[in-house]
Amino acid sequence: MRASRLNQVLHSVADAGRELLRRGAPAARPHRQSPHTLCEALLSTRGEASGTALARDVADAYRAMNHAEKRAFFSMLAADYGPDPTAIHAAGEAYRSAPGFETLMELSAAIEPPRQKLFRRINMAPEGTATIVAMRKDLLELLPDDPPLRAVDADLVHLLASWFNRGFLRLRQIDWESPAALLQKIMAYESVHAMAGWDELRRRLAGDRRCFAFFHPALADEPLIFVEVALTRGMASVVQPLLADGGDVLDPREADTAVFYAINNCQAGLVGISFGNFLIKQVVVELAYELPNLKTFATLSPIPGFRAWLASLDKSANTAVSTNETEAMERLSTPGWHRDEEVAGRMREPLTRLCARYLLETGPGGRSLDPVARFHLRNGARLERINWLGDVSAKGLSESAGLLVNYLYDPRTIERNHEGYVKEGGIAASPEIRRLLR
Amino acid sequence: MRASRLNQVLHSVADAGRELLRRGAPAARPHRQSPHTLCEALLSTRGEASGTALARDVADAYRAMNHAEKRAFFSMLAADYGPDPTAIHAAGEAYRSAPGFETLMELSAAIEPPRQKLFRRINMAPEGTATIVAMRKDLLELLPDDPPLRAVDADLVHLLASWFNRGFLRLRQIDWESPAALLQKIMAYESVHAMAGWDELRRRLAGDRRCFAFFHPALADEPLIFVEVALTRGMASVVQPLLADGGDVLDPREADTAVFYAINNCQAGLVGISFGNFLIKQVVVELAYELPNLKTFATLSPIPGFRAWLASLDKSANTAVSTNETEAMERLSTPGWHRDEEVAGRMREPLTRLCARYLLETGPGGRSLDPVARFHLRNGARLERINWLGDVSAKGLSESAGLLVNYLYDPRTIERNHEGYVKEGGIAASPEIRRLLR
Amino acid sequence: MRASRLNQVLHSVADAGRELLRRGAPAARPHRQSPHTLCEALLSTRGEASGTALARDVADAYRAMNHAEKRAFFSMLAADYGPDPTAIHAAGEAYRSAPGFETLMELSAAIEPPRQKLFRRINMAPEGTATIVAMRKDLLELLPDDPPLRAVDADLVHLLASWFNRGFLRLRQIDWESPAALLQKIMAYESVHAMAGWDELRRRLAGDRRCFAFFHPALADEPLIFVEVALTRGMASVVQPLLADGGDVLDPREADTAVFYAINNCQAGLVGISFGNFLIKQVVVELAYELPNLKTFATLSPIPGFRAWLASLDKSANTAVSTNETEAMERLSTPGWHRDEEVAGRMREPLTRLCARYLLETGPGGRSLDPVARFHLRNGARLERINWLGDVSAKGLSESAGLLVNYLYDPRTIERNHEGYVKEGGIAASPEIRRLLR
Amino acid sequence: MRASRLNQVLHSVADAGRELLRRGAPAARPHRQSPHTLCEALLSTRGEASGTALARDVADAYRAMNHAEKRAFFSMLAADYGPDPTAIHAAGEAYRSAPGFETLMELSAAIEPPRQKLFRRINMAPEGTATIVAMRKDLLELLPDDPPLRAVDADLVHLLASWFNRGFLRLRQIDWESPAALLQKIMAYESVHAMAGWDELRRRLAGDRRCFAFFHPALADEPLIFVEVALTRGMASVVQPLLADGGDVLDPREADTAVFYAINNCQAGLVGISFGNFLIKQVVVELAYELPNLKTFATLSPIPGFRAWLASLDKSANTAVSTNETEAMERLSTPGWHRDEEVAGRMREPLTRLCARYLLETGPGGRSLDPVARFHLRNGARLERINWLGDVSAKGLSESAGLLVNYLYDPRTIERNHEGYVKEGGIAASPEIRRLLR
Repeated sequence: MRASRLNQVLHSVADAGRELLRRGAPAARPHRQSPHTLCEALLSTRGEASGTALARDVADAYRAMNHAEKRAFFSMLAADYGPDPTAIHAAGEAYRSAPGFETLMELSAAIEPPRQKLFRRINMAPEGTATIVAMRKDLLELLPDDPPLRAVDADLVHLLASWFNRGFLRLRQIDWESPAALLQKIMAYESVHAMAGWDELRRRLAGDRRCFAFFHPALADEPLIFVEVALTRGMASVVQPLLADGGDVLDPREADTAVFYAINNCQAGLVGISFGNFLIKQVVVELAYELPNLKTFATLSPIPGFRAWLASLDKSANTAVSTNETEAMERLSTPGWHRDEEVAGRMREPLTRLCARYLLETGPGGRSLDPVARFHLRNGARLERINWLGDVSAKGLSESAGLLVNYLYDPRTIERNHEGYVKEGGIAASPEIRRLLR
Repeated sequence: MRASRLNQVLHSVADAGRELLRRGAPAARPHRQSPHTLCEALLSTRGEASGTALARDVADAYRAMNHAEKRAFFSMLAADYGPDPTAIHAAGEAYRSAPGFETLMELSAAIEPPRQKLFRRINMAPEGTATIVAMRKDLLELLPDDPPLRAVDADLVHLLASWFNRGFLRLRQIDWESPAALLQKIMAYESVHAMAGWDELRRRLAGDRRCFAFFHPALADEPLIFVEVALTRGMASVVQPLLADGGDVLDPREADTAVFYAINNCQAGLVGISFGNFLIKQVVVELAYELPNLKTFATLSPIPGFRAWLASLDKSANTAVSTNETEAMERLSTPGWHRDEEVAGRMREPLTRLCARYLLETGPGGRSLDPVARFHLRNGARLERINWLGDVSAKGLSESAGLLVNYLYDPRTIERNHEGYVKEGGIAASPEIRRLLR
Repeated sequence: MRASRLNQVLHSVADAGRELLRRGAPAARPHRQSPHTLCEALLSTRGEASGTALARDVADAYRAMNHAEKRAFFSMLAADYGPDPTAIHAAGEAYRSAPGFETLMELSAAIEPPRQKLFRRINMAPEGTATIVAMRKDLLELLPDDPPLRAVDADLVHLLASWFNRGFLRLRQIDWESPAALLQKIMAYESVHAMAGWDELRRRLAGDRRCFAFFHPALADEPLIFVEVALTRGMASVVQPLLADGGDVLDPREADTAVFYAINNCQAGLVGISFGNFLIKQVVVELAYELPNLKTFATLSPIPGFRAWLASLDKSANTAVSTNETEAMERLSTPGWHRDEEVAGRMREPLTRLCARYLLETGPGGRSLDPVARFHLRNGARLERINWLGDVSAKGLSESAGLLVNYLYDPRTIERNHEGYVKEGGIAASPEIRRLLR
Repeated sequence: MRASRLNQVLHSVADAGRELLRRGAPAARPHRQSPHTLCEALLSTRGEASGTALARDVADAYRAMNHAEKRAFFSMLAADYGPDPTAIHAAGEAYRSAPGFETLMELSAAIEPPRQKLFRRINMAPEGTATIVAMRKDLLELLPDDPPLRAVDADLVHLLASWFNRGFLRLRQIDWESPAALLQKIMAYESVHAMAGWDELRRRLAGDRRCFAFFHPALADEPLIFVEVALTRGMASVVQPLLADGGDVLDPREADTAVFYAINNCQAGLVGISFGNFLIKQVVVELAYELPNLKTFATLSPIPGFRAWLASLDKSANTAVSTNETEAMERLSTPGWHRDEEVAGRMREPLTRLCARYLLETGPGGRSLDPVARFHLRNGARLERINWLGDVSAKGLSESAGLLVNYLYDPRTIERNHEGYVKEGGIAASPEIRRLLR
C-alpha cells in the first residue's frame, strides 16, 4: 500500500465528509452557487459551522473558473471585501480622542479587510494553501492591467508572509533517491541553467553535488526554492563543465569549496516572499557540518543586467567609455565572437573592466544595478571575482556577455557586509575587483 | 540510528551554524546581552543578515529568564514596541484626506506594532514556535495583574490565530503503538477524566476506543487538543464504565454509536485559539468512513457550572423553586448521597428538571450559561439527554451534581442548529429535554 | 538529513567497528590475505569471535577479485569445501546399522558441505546477502565451462531458496512517487518491452497503470521481480498502444480488466528461485481489493518460441502443414509483411491456427513447448486468446511472428488448471482456441 | 490514518484474497479439514497453486489447536513426515558406488525430511514466521516428555538458524519515543532485573542509558533480544542504583564507561538460536561511534550458579574449604545477613575468594561452570572484577550470594580471549581476580 493510495483514501474521506455533513441538504449544492454567494456563506455563521466543507466549495469553485471569471472574482474581492472608509474614519476619530488599547483594537479591526478573513477560511480547506498560492499567481498576472487589484494582492502578501515564516519551512536534501515526481518538478523549475533531461539531472545530483530545497508542510510535494551546489577544488569560474553530463565525480571529502551555481524560486504565487537568504545560509551550515574540509562558500552567478546596461551606456553620450571598450561592446553583436580566441582575447580586459564598473555602480538608495548582485549583496556576500567566458550558453552571452561572477559568503563578514550595504549602500568587493577600476 | 539521535545531530548543526556565522566575532556573545539590546538587534538589519542565529539568541535569552525578568520583558514590549500614536494620527489624517490604496497601506503600517515583527523573527529560530507559545503561556499568567500587557497578548493572539489556521493542523490517531513520550503527555493533559496510570490509558486506547489529536508541524511532538471516543452500542449514559481498566472490548464493527467522552486542550499558550470545533467534525468524518456501522455521534459531557448555578439559585429569593427541588439541592451537600438508592431516587426527578432548566436558560446575547454547553451548541450540536448519576467521581459530584449530558452531533442539523444558536440564541434540544420543563 | 547520508554514517559505523575490534592488531589487515586464509579464518573460532568483521573482509576480498580470481575462488570452494566422502560413508554405515535420530543427524552433518557454513557467515557481513547474490551471478556465468562448480551452485541455491522464502518478501507498489534510483533500475531491468526513456516510464506509471515488485529486506533497494499492469476496458489484444507515451489515461474505476503485460526478473543471481507465481497472485488480490470493478485478470504475453518452432516444422518433412500455412510461414521472412494489409490478411488464419497448435502441443512430461506458456500454465492460468498482430515490434515479429497471447487468471479455476497441467500435462485452453484446431 | 489501521486493511486484503482465490469452491473450507489433510494439500501441487492461501489455512488451523491437538500434530510430523530410511539406504548405496555430484544430491534429498518443506510453506503464510516460532515454543514444552519429537525440533532449528542469520537482523535503539506496545513487551521480557512499572522503565531509557534490540523483518514488532546499558563514570559495581527510579541523569558526554547490566532473550521459540554475541559487539560499535568519550565496555552480570555450586561444595567432603569459608557459606542462610555490616564484613573476603574459585574452575571440555560466564567468555570477554554486595535483591542473594561480576569487552583482546577459551578452555581473567586465589 502506497502513500499515493493513502492520499486517494484521504481524499475520499474529505468527500465523504462533505456528503456526510450535508446529508440533510442535498438541494443546496453550494459549489453551483455564485462566487459571491459562496464567499458570503463562508464569512457567515454557516461558514463557521460547516467545518471545512464550505471552504472546500469555494476552493473548488475557484479552480473551475476561467480567466474572465477569475478577473471578475478578484474585482469583486477588491470592490466588496475591502475595509469600510466610514468605519475607519470613525475608529480613527475614537482613537484620536482616547488613544488606548480598546480604541486601537477597534481601529485595527476597522482597517482589516474582510478579504483576509475570507482567505484565512479558504486556507482551511483541503489543499487550501495551494489554492491561495494559485490565486496569488493568477492575480499577479492580472495586476499590471488592473491596478485596483493591488489591494487584494497586499492582503495575500500579508497572509503568505506570515504563513511562510522561516520557522515553518523545512529544508530537505534532494538527490537521486528522491521521488521522480519531485525531480521532474526540479527540472521544470530550473531556469538559471536549464536541464536537457534526466541524465543531466542525475549528474547534478551525483556524489560531488548537493541540492537543497525549502518545503512548507502545507505544500508537502512542492519545493519553494532550491539551490544547486558543486563541491570543487578551488572556486569554479566556468559553469559549463558543471552542467555537462559525464565528467569525473570528485570525492566530496577532497573538495575545499562549495559553489552555489543555481538558485531557483519555484512558486510564482510566492514572488516577493523571501526565502533565498535563509536557504543559502542554512545550506552553508549543513555543508560545513557534513564536510569539515570545505573552506570556501561562494556562488557562480550570472550578471543578467549587464548587456542591457552596456546598451544604455552606448546611447548616453555623457559616459566616459574608452575606444577599447566601445570596440569590445560592438563586437558582442557578432555571433560566435567568443569562439575566436584572438578576438575574444582583445575583448577580455575592456569588458571585464566594464563589468566591474557595472557591478560597483549604485543606483538610487545605494542599491546595486544588477538584480542578482542586489540579492547577494543584501545577504551579506562579497563581490569576489569576475570570470571571463564563464557561461557561453546563448542565454549567458545575450544577458551577461558570457561573464559570470563569484559572490563569496564568508561567515565572518556577512553581518558587516550586509549592514554596510543596507545602511550606506556600500558594495563589498574584493581588492582584485576594485583594482580593475583603477 | 534513531530519530532522537538525529535531533541531537540537528541541534548540533544549529549550534555549529551559530558558531560558524560568528567565527569573526567571538567577543560579542549576544545572549549575554540585555533583552532590549537583543530585540533591537533582531529588528535591525543585523537581524536580517544573521539568518536565524540572532532569533535563537533571543529565544535562548527568554528561556533563561526568571519570573521577574519575564514580567520586565513583557512590560518592555508593551511600553517600547507598540505603535506610535503620532504616526497613527498622521496616517489617519492622510487617509481621511485621500482615501486609497497607498494611504490605507500606510495607515496599516502605522498601526502594526513593532512587537509583531519581533515575534515573527523569533519564530524563525529553531523551536521558535514553541518559544512563542511558551511566551503566551507566561503572559497569560501575568495578565490579570498587569492590564497594559493586554496589548502584547493581542499581538500574540493575532499571530497565533494566523499560524494555527486549521489548514496547517494535522489530525493523527493516537493508539497503543504511539510513542510512549506522547502517551505520557496525553495522560498529563487529560483533565476531564484524569487517568490513574498506564493500565487505564491502555484501556482507553483498546480496540473499541479511538483517540485523535491535532498537531502543528512546527510543534511536532506536542498535541494541541485531543478527543477520546468510545464505540458503543447505544448512547452511553454513564462514564465510569468507560474509564475503568478491564471490561470487555466490543468489536468496533458491532458498535452503532461513537461517544466523545473527553476533549482536552493541551497548550495553555493557545487558549482562545479555537480548534475543538474542527476536531470533532473531522473525527466524525474519519469514524464514519472507517466504521460505516456507526449511526450516532454524541458526546458524554459534564455540566461544570451546574452546582454553582444551583447555589446561586438558592440565594436568589425571587426564583421559583419547588419544595422538592429545594430538598434535593440541600441533600447534595450530604456526602455519599448518591450511594443511598432511596435518597437518590427521590432527588432524581427534581435535579434532572433543574438541570434542564439550567441548560435551557440563556444569559446575555442568548448564550447558554454553561461553558461546555456553549461550546457544543455553538458547534451546532443538540442537547440530547440528561443522565442521572452519569459521573459519580468526586469532581463529577462537586461540579455537575453527578449528572452528565449527551450532546448529539447530527450532520443533518449542525448548520441549522449553529445558526439558530448564534443568531437567535435558540438552544437546540431534544423533545425529551423540553418535556422535562413542562 | 537524508537516508543516503544516514547510510554513509552507518557505513562509517561498520568501518569504525572493524577498526575498533582490531585496535590491537593493525598488522594483520585480513583483506590483504589470500581467499583461502580468509575462508579458513571465517570458519574458525576467530570467525565466531570477530562478530561480522571477518565476514566483511571476505566479502570485500571477493568484490575486489577479477574474473580469473573468482574462478579460482569457486574452484577452491568446489575442491576444498565440499563434504568428506569417507565421513559420509561412515555416517551412512552407522545409520544403516542403527537408524535413529542421532545417526541421522550425524549423516546430515556429514553431508552438509562446509561451503554452506561459509556462505552463511558471509551473509552476516554488511550487505552480505547482496554479496551472496552477486557470487551466484558470477558463478552462473562460469558454470557452463566448469561442471564441477555445479556443487557450489547447488549450495547457493539451497541457501537462497531458504532465504528468499515468500514469507520474507515484501510487495511494494512502484509509481511516479518512487525514488528515481529505483525507477532507473526498473527501466534497466525491463526486457520484455524495453523502454526508450523516462517519458515512456511515466506513461507506464500513470493513473490507469499499476506496477508491483517484490523486495527482500536484506536487498532493500533492489527489486527482485516486477509486473506491469494496464487497467483497461476489455482484454487488451495489442501491446503497442499500452507502451506508447501519450494516449488518454482511463479512470481506473471504469476499468473492468487488469492486463499483466510484462513480468521481469531482475536478479541474475536468483535465477531458478521462483517468485513469479506468488507475485501475480498477490497482485490479483491487491487489485481486486483496490478496484472492485475489475472482473478479468489476464496477461498479454509473447510466444517467444513460436518462430523457432515454425522453423523446425518447416524442416521436418513428416509434419502435416497445409499449403496456406507454408505460404504464410514463408511470408514471415519478407520484411514489413505486417504493414501490407492484404498480405497480412491472408496470413492471419493459417498463422493463428499454427500458433494454437504450437501452444497446445506438449513435449516430454506433458509440458508446454513454449517457456512463457509453461510458466503461466503451471501457475494455473488458462490459454485464453491469440491476438493477431499483437506485437509488431522487431522483437515481437522475430520471436512471436507478431502474435500475442492472453493467459487468463480466473481465481475459480487456478487450482484445478494447475493440477491438470502438473499431473496430467493437460493444457487449459478456452473453447475459442480449441476451435481453431478443428 | 495509522499503521495499525493499515494493518487491518492488509489483513482484509489477505482475507479477500483467500476468498477471491476460492470463489469457485466455497464448499471446501480447508481450515475445517484435519491437520493431516491440510499438510498433505500444502505439500501437494495444490499447495503450489494456491499461492499462500493454503499455508494460511494450516497456520490458522495450528493456532486453533488445544494442547492435546498440538501434541498429536507434532507426533504426526515426527511419525509421518520424516525421511524414508529405505530411500536413504538406497541413495547411500548409490553414492558409495559412484560418489559424485548427482548421487550426493540424491542422498541429500533423501535425507531431508518432508517436514522441512512443510515448514517452509507454512512460512509463506501471512505471519508465517511468527507461526513457526510459536510452533517451536510449543514443541520445546512437549520435548522433555516426548523424545521422538527431537527430530521435529532439529528441523525447526535448522530452518530458524538459517532464517535468523545475523545478516537479516536489524538493530534498533529503544527509547522513550518507542511505541508503548513495544515498551510493554520490553518490560514483560526483562527477567534479569525485573521492572516494577513504567516509571522504572523510563529511568532505564533516560539520557544516560541506552537500550538496543535485534528485530527480524518478518517479526517486525517483536524484539528478539535486547541489552540495557548504563553510561557511567568508572565501571559500576552495584546494580540497584542503576535500577531505581530517580537519581541524577549523567550527561552522556561525561561518561567513560558503558555498562551492559541486562541482556534478555525474548522469544522462547528461538532458544538455541544465538544472537547475543552479535548484539553486544554491535552495540559496542554503535556506542563507540556515538560517544567517543567511552573508553571501557563491560557488563555487570549475575553469577546464577554460584549458590548452587556452594551447596555442592558443602556436601563434597573432599574439597578444601577453610573454616572462614565454611562459616561464610553457613551465614548465607541467615535472612538479612547483608544488612548487618559487621557480619557481612567478615563474609566478604572468603565469599569473594570462593566466587573467584568458582568462576575460574572449568568443567568438561574446559568450559566454565557458570552459564553467564560461559556466554561472555565464549564471546571473548575477560573476567574483570567481582563486586561484593553488587545485587542485594532477593534473586541476587539467592542465586549469586549478592555478588556481581564485571566482564570486560576489550576490542583488542576479544579474538585472543575467545580462541584461548574455545581451544584450550583457558579463562581470561584480570590479575586482580587471579590474585584472589593465591
